[in-house]
Amino acid sequence: MPLANTSFLDACRGQRPARTPVWVMRQAGRYLPEYRAVRSKVSFTELCHSPQLCAEVTLQPLDRFDLDAAILFSDILTVLDALGAEVEFNPAPHVANPVRTLSDIDGLQFGKADDHLGYVYDAVSACKKALNNRVPLIGFCGAPLTTASYLVEGGGTKDFLNTKRLMFTEPAAFGRLMEGITTILIDYLAGQVRQGIDAIQIFESWAAALTPEDYREHALPHLTRLVTEAKKLGVPVIAFVRGNATLMEQAATLPADVLGVDWSIQLSRAIEVVGADKVVQGNLDPIALFAPPEVLAAKTRAVLQEGRAAKAHIFNLGHGISRHTDPEQMKLLVDTVHEADA
Amino acid sequence: MPLANTSFLDACRGQRPARTPVWVMRQAGRYLPEYRAVRSKVSFTELCHSPQLCAEVTLQPLDRFDLDAAILFSDILTVLDALGAEVEFNPAPHVANPVRTLSDIDGLQFGKADDHLGYVYDAVSACKKALNNRVPLIGFCGAPLTTASYLVEGGGTKDFLNTKRLMFTEPAAFGRLMEGITTILIDYLAGQVRQGIDAIQIFESWAAALTPEDYREHALPHLTRLVTEAKKLGVPVIAFVRGNATLMEQAATLPADVLGVDWSIQLSRAIEVVGADKVVQGNLDPIALFAPPEVLAAKTRAVLQEGRAAKAHIFNLGHGISRHTDPEQMKLLVDTVHEADA
Repeated sequence: MPLANTSFLDACRGQRPARTPVWVMRQAGRYLPEYRAVRSKVSFTELCHSPQLCAEVTLQPLDRFDLDAAILFSDILTVLDALGAEVEFNPAPHVANPVRTLSDIDGLQFGKADDHLGYVYDAVSACKKALNNRVPLIGFCGAPLTTASYLVEGGGTKDFLNTKRLMFTEPAAFGRLMEGITTILIDYLAGQVRQGIDAIQIFESWAAALTPEDYREHALPHLTRLVTEAKKLGVPVIAFVRGNATLMEQAATLPADVLGVDWSIQLSRAIEVVGADKVVQGNLDPIALFAPPEVLAAKTRAVLQEGRAAKAHIFNLGHGISRHTDPEQMKLLVDTVHEADA
Repeated sequence: MPLANTSFLDACRGQRPARTPVWVMRQAGRYLPEYRAVRSKVSFTELCHSPQLCAEVTLQPLDRFDLDAAILFSDILTVLDALGAEVEFNPAPHVANPVRTLSDIDGLQFGKADDHLGYVYDAVSACKKALNNRVPLIGFCGAPLTTASYLVEGGGTKDFLNTKRLMFTEPAAFGRLMEGITTILIDYLAGQVRQGIDAIQIFESWAAALTPEDYREHALPHLTRLVTEAKKLGVPVIAFVRGNATLMEQAATLPADVLGVDWSIQLSRAIEVVGADKVVQGNLDPIALFAPPEVLAAKTRAVLQEGRAAKAHIFNLGHGISRHTDPEQMKLLVDTVHEADA
């Protein structure tokens, strides 16, 4: 059975659908009372490991809002299961055995994604079944640098000191680590696609950890390999390089179908940088959802207007939605996007 | 008695001194054992309130490193004393009575900087006396947005939700708040200059809180007023707009003598954006100090080389030095800057 709503996939492929598709990063999440009701009964890790609950929360925002895509409920750190890292969420992620030295890297036992991440694949299947082709399902993973930084830091960090010290001190070993992670990420995406994922988003959440020069030398080659291999899987690939707008130039060199744009750069400027032949996704400031309704609507329409300069535009926030957001404001945002094209 | 070393002030005024001047943000701080020894005896607040101890720690790095400027030991949040806010450091700053609503703003009792910040002026005098004209002394304050964000958030924040909600919901009142803060900052800088400060740095530490459009509308006019008034005080003014390289274009419109550049943008690119007729300061990644010595030296020389495209260049880090830095690496950095010009 074909998808009932193809506007998101059409836009990914560079066509301009009749109305601009919209989805929102973290659209299935804590700002929804029905999500919090599920989480009151299970931990975050238990939720990620339950295909039925993943499907339930993945579909929750679709029942409230007129969204054009669903995104698998999971976490970019699930892949650490295949890297031999023990990750816990309390609620911030914590890796008990971070990788800090050359011998830590040499001692890593990289597993196969398929041997460790079957629970995610089962969640993809459950989501696809529950969606019943209403809208496409987006799968995802973290980019190599973002994934590596959690493995090395062991948790959140402001300065990425451990990651950068390792990179500066043992650049060859750091390169091997990035290469090994990239190989597992490729396998992981292939597994998600086998279960029916319709598009892929790669989250480079911590691109801004590195200077532009260091990013180009130590991160971009691995991300390029990941995007290149992901493209061979036959579904559109969105690359979201977040946190440093000056990296848009480097992002534009990726063979991705869509470039995600964060809110630190005006969308019209981002389109100038990457070129009007590219499809872009973004980029409303998530905190605009805390503005009065008329201000939120005006800001939403301004982003839509700027997006018209691109080959195609997928409306999204420029970062994940805040847990403190009023769902009524989210509804206003989605309806404003669709009404603007009506 | 004239200053023994004028290279920093010469560079501020657009001359190229024989050797590139260097100082480092947070050069007087926790990475120095002698600073930690002082702090083991007094709290951060007690230190800021003691002119003699401020002078002692301000001069500590000068006794170790061949630096071309000193910066007053103080904090950008001392000015909150004149805004009726009760700020504590434990160790992160915490404001007991944050400003969140229209009535909070209307209820603010802005004092005079001179009535509340005499202890800072005394610290300036003590530093100048202790320096005995070895090198110039830099005074500083936070920019209006950065100062306002602490007052509104009450402490650190990732998303500046309260600041932006107030700005979106009560834009006129937010403007009044920014205007009142700016007036006090102008008075505060005037007081520092009266005590003998040789140059001013304005820290817009949280420029990246706002989208470029919102920054232009809600923050830049107040920062422009602050820089314009600071310029009338007769000493060079450095504006450091940190955290979003796309704001360099807006920073370039400020009437500052020097533009600080953070490490998120390559220095050569920043000079292209602001123009080769500007003086720039920056921008080595502070975490480069954790690289092996030869890598640190190479990265230092690369920044120096890029700086040659500007009218003049003051070498600095692109953010404050990390508390975990080895002082020997700091020495290598300073010596590398000076030897490159020898």
